[in-house]
Amino acid sequence: MKEIVQKAGDRSQKVVEWKAPEELRELMDLDPTAVGETHEKLLMRLQDIIKYSVKTGHPRFVNQLFSSLDPYGLAGQIVTDALNTSQYTYETAPVFTLMEETVLKTMRTCIGYTEGNGIFCPGGSLSNIMAVNCARHFMFPQTKKTGMFGLPPLVIYTSELAHYSIKKAGYLLGFGDDNVKLVKTDELGKIIPEDLERQIQETIDEGCTPFMIVATAGTTVFGAFDPIDKMADVAQKYGLWYHVDGAWGGGVLMSKKHRDMMKGVDRADSVTWNPHKLLGVPQQCSCFLTKHVNILQQCHRADAKYLFQKDKFYDTSYDTGDKTFQCGRKVDVLKFWLMWKAKGSEGFEQHIDKLFDNTRYIVEKLKQREGFRMVVNEPDCTNVCFWYVPPSLRNMPEDEEFWNRLHTVAPKVKEGMIRDGTMMITYQPQKDLVNFFRLVLQNSATTYEDMDFFIDEIERLGKFL
Amino acid sequence: MKEIVQKAGDRSQKVVEWKAPEELRELMDLDPTAVGETHEKLLMRLQDIIKYSVKTGHPRFVNQLFSSLDPYGLAGQIVTDALNTSQYTYETAPVFTLMEETVLKTMRTCIGYTEGNGIFCPGGSLSNIMAVNCARHFMFPQTKKTGMFGLPPLVIYTSELAHYSIKKAGYLLGFGDDNVKLVKTDELGKIIPEDLERQIQETIDEGCTPFMIVATAGTTVFGAFDPIDKMADVAQKYGLWYHVDGAWGGGVLMSKKHRDMMKGVDRADSVTWNPHKLLGVPQQCSCFLTKHVNILQQCHRADAKYLFQKDKFYDTSYDTGDKTFQCGRKVDVLKFWLMWKAKGSEGFEQHIDKLFDNTRYIVEKLKQREGFRMVVNEPDCTNVCFWYVPPSLRNMPEDEEFWNRLHTVAPKVKEGMIRDGTMMITYQPQKDLVNFFRLVLQNSATTYEDMDFFIDEIERLGKFL
Repeated sequence: MKEIVQKAGDRSQKVVEWKAPEELRELMDLDPTAVGETHEKLLMRLQDIIKYSVKTGHPRFVNQLFSSLDPYGLAGQIVTDALNTSQYTYETAPVFTLMEETVLKTMRTCIGYTEGNGIFCPGGSLSNIMAVNCARHFMFPQTKKTGMFGLPPLVIYTSELAHYSIKKAGYLLGFGDDNVKLVKTDELGKIIPEDLERQIQETIDEGCTPFMIVATAGTTVFGAFDPIDKMADVAQKYGLWYHVDGAWGGGVLMSKKHRDMMKGVDRADSVTWNPHKLLGVPQQCSCFLTKHVNILQQCHRADAKYLFQKDKFYDTSYDTGDKTFQCGRKVDVLKFWLMWKAKGSEGFEQHIDKLFDNTRYIVEKLKQREGFRMVVNEPDCTNVCFWYVPPSLRNMPEDEEFWNRLHTVAPKVKEGMIRDGTMMITYQPQKDLVNFFRLVLQNSATTYEDMDFFIDEIERLGKFL
Repeated sequence: MKEIVQKAGDRSQKVVEWKAPEELRELMDLDPTAVGETHEKLLMRLQDIIKYSVKTGHPRFVNQLFSSLDPYGLAGQIVTDALNTSQYTYETAPVFTLMEETVLKTMRTCIGYTEGNGIFCPGGSLSNIMAVNCARHFMFPQTKKTGMFGLPPLVIYTSELAHYSIKKAGYLLGFGDDNVKLVKTDELGKIIPEDLERQIQETIDEGCTPFMIVATAGTTVFGAFDPIDKMADVAQKYGLWYHVDGAWGGGVLMSKKHRDMMKGVDRADSVTWNPHKLLGVPQQCSCFLTKHVNILQQCHRADAKYLFQKDKFYDTSYDTGDKTFQCGRKVDVLKFWLMWKAKGSEGFEQHIDKLFDNTRYIVEKLKQREGFRMVVNEPDCTNVCFWYVPPSLRNMPEDEEFWNRLHTVAPKVKEGMIRDGTMMITYQPQKDLVNFFRLVLQNSATTYEDMDFFIDEIERLGKFL
C-alpha cells in the first residue's frame, strides 16, 4: 500500500501501464474458483492489480474531476474501513453521526445558509437526484402519496452544458427527458438568463408546470459558472425551487479570493458540493445541502419500525436513516473531517488558490505556444480547454476539412499518451466544437514543470499527425 | 488500525463505549478550525474516534444485517482506497471493470441465469431502486422520454414485511405510496400468494395497471423467504416484472444445503444480492443482477459525450457508466473478489453452513430456557426472534397488561447491554407483536459460547424487570 502511495507521487513512474480489455483479461485470472488460494498467490495478484490500475494520485493524471491522494484523507478512509459501520442510526455510528452534522453545518456556513440540513450521498449524481426529489416534495408534496400519475408535466430547467445527472434524475424520478429543458449558453458556456425565462414562459403557454431551476457552478467540460445570482432572480420571480450543482466548483467557497464566483448561492434552496473534486478528498465524498430544515425527512421518511424505534433510550432525532432514499450508508465524512483538521480551512484555501494559480500559468503558456489554441480564453475554473493544431494543418484554410482533421488529433494524441503511460488528459467535442483537450487542475502537487511537460508531450505525440 | 482489527475480535473488549449524543459532543471537539493541527493531536483524535465507535467486527455485535471484519475484505478495501479511482470508464478503472464483469457473471450463474447483466450499487436500497427503474423501462419504455404524467397508476406489489426501500423506491420514482401495495403474510412472515393475486385483480378492477412484483428472500426482521417459485407463477400469469430482493438472504445461493430456499429465483427478471450481508464482505457491497442483457443501458443511457467518446482507441462497450443513474462510482468489487479468491466458493459455503448451524444451536437453547419464548419457532434464515419474559411476568394471565409490560422489556435490556457494552442485539415490534429481540447471525466467528452468553446476559439484564 505504501508502494502505491509513493509510486503515485513519483513522476518517473507511469500513470498507467496500459492493456486493452482482451489483453488484460488474458494477463489476469479473474474468475472466482471453488478452492481458496495461498497468501503468496494472493499478494502476487494484488501486485498485478496495482500494476495495471491507473495511478489516479499521479500529478500527471489530469483526466477527471478528481485526482491526487491526500495522506490524511487516505488515513481517514482506512480507519473508516476498519470500523466498517453503516450510517443510519446514532446507535451504530455515534461519532460519525455527530461528525457529519458538524461538517455539514460548517459547509452550510460557507454557502451562507443560516439554517438548514444536509446529507452525504454516494456521488454527485445522487446528490442531484436528491435535489430533484426534495424539490418535488416541496412543490408537490402529494406526489409522495399518490405519485405523478395524472399531473401535468413538471418541467426542470438546466444548462445545455449541465452534468448529465440532471437528465438521469429526470429519467429516474419519472419526469422524462422531454421535461428536462436545456437552456442555451453563451460563448463562455454560461446560461443565458433570457433564454431561461423564455423557456419558462413557453412551458406556461403549453399548459405545463415550471418546477425547478438548476444552475451549474463549474460545468464538467468548460468549468463555466452559470450566473447564479441572476438565475436566483428568475427562480424567485416564478416561485421555483432553485438548485445549484456545485459538485465540481463548490470548493471555491473555501477561498476568499475565488468565492465570489458563487455569489448568490445562499439564495439557492439546495446545493450539491463534492469535496472529492476540487478539495482533493478521496472518492467518494459528495454533499447535498439545503436551507430547508425538515425537507429531507419529510421527503424520505418511511419510519421503518425495526430500525427507528421511538422507544430507544437516546434522542432518536439523531438517527439519520430517514433523511435519504438509502438505508445502509457508507461513512464518507471521516476522511474529509481529518483533512480539514489537519490542514485547517487555511490549508484548503491555499490548495484552491494554488490550483487557480496553476491554471493561470498554463493558460498563459498555451497562448504563447505555436500550434496551441484556447477553446475558452479565460477559464472560470481550473478546466483548461484547448486544441493542438499539428504543423500539417497550420497553413490550411479553416474549412470543413480542417475541422474534420483537427477532430481526429486529440484521440490520436490521447492514444499515444496512454500507450506510453506518460500522462492522462481527456478530450471531447462540445456543442459545435470538434474534439479538444480538457486538462483539469485539481491536484495542488502538480507543478509548473508538470504543466510545461503536458504541453511538450502533446506536441511530441501530435506534431507529425 | 491493527488495534481496531485485533480489538474487534477480542471478547474482553466492549462492543461499544456508550456516550449519549450530548456527552459525546462534549468529549470530542468536532468543529473544523481555521488552522491545521499537529500529527500528535490528530492521532489522539483518531484514537478517540475509534474508542467511541461501535466495534461492528466484534463477535457479539449481532445488531444489524452486517457484522464481522474479514481480513481479506479489509485488505481489498485498503487497496481500493489507495488506488482511489472511480468506475465509469474502462480507461480509469481497467482492472476493476473486468473484475466487476467476471464477479457479476459468476453471481448470475449462482442464480441460474444463462445470460444477463448487472452492476454494483451503493447499498441494497439503491439496488432495489434500480430494479423498479429497469422494470418501468421494460414495461413502459416511453416514460424515459415523456415521464409518468398522464399514465394510469402503475402498481407494485410486495410483502407487508418487505424492506422499506421498496416504499422509498415508490416515493422516489414517482409512483407514490398508494401504488406500492403490501401483500399479507402468514404466521412465518411469508407472502400469501392468494392475497397477491387478489390485489392484482383489485388493481385491474380499479382501472389501474399492475406493474411489478417484489419477493423478499430473507425479510429484515423474521428472515422469512417468500414463496419465490409460486410468486413467479403469478408474475408470469399477469406478465409483470418479477424482482427478488435477496439483499439479506442471497448468500444462501453459495450453499448446496441451503440454496433451495431460493428455488425459482432463476425465473425472476432481477435480483438484489448484498455480499456485505450474509457473506460478510465489508460495507458496502450490493449487486443488482438481471437476466435482461441490455436493460441497464437502455434505461440509464444519457451518452455524455465528454466521458463516453465513441472514438476512443479501445472497445468502449467496456465503459460501464451508462449502466447506472450514478456517474462516479466507488469500486466495491475488489474486497469481495479478494475474499472469494482467498476462501474459494467452498469457504463461503462453509461460512453459510456454520451460520445456519449456529442458528439451530441458539434456537434449541432458547426453546429449552425458562423465560424465553420464540416469535418464529423455526426461522428460515439466521434471524432469531424471541421474547424474554422476566420472572415478574411469568405467572400473569396473558392479557393486555401482560403484553404492554412485555413491550417495555426489550428496550430496557437493550439499554443495559449498551451501557455495559457487552453486546448489541436489536429489538422491534412487528405487525401486532410487541417488542421482541432479533439477533442476527452473520459472523461465523461467533461461537456456541457467544450464544450462551447472549442468553445469560439478557437474563442478567432483564430478570428484575
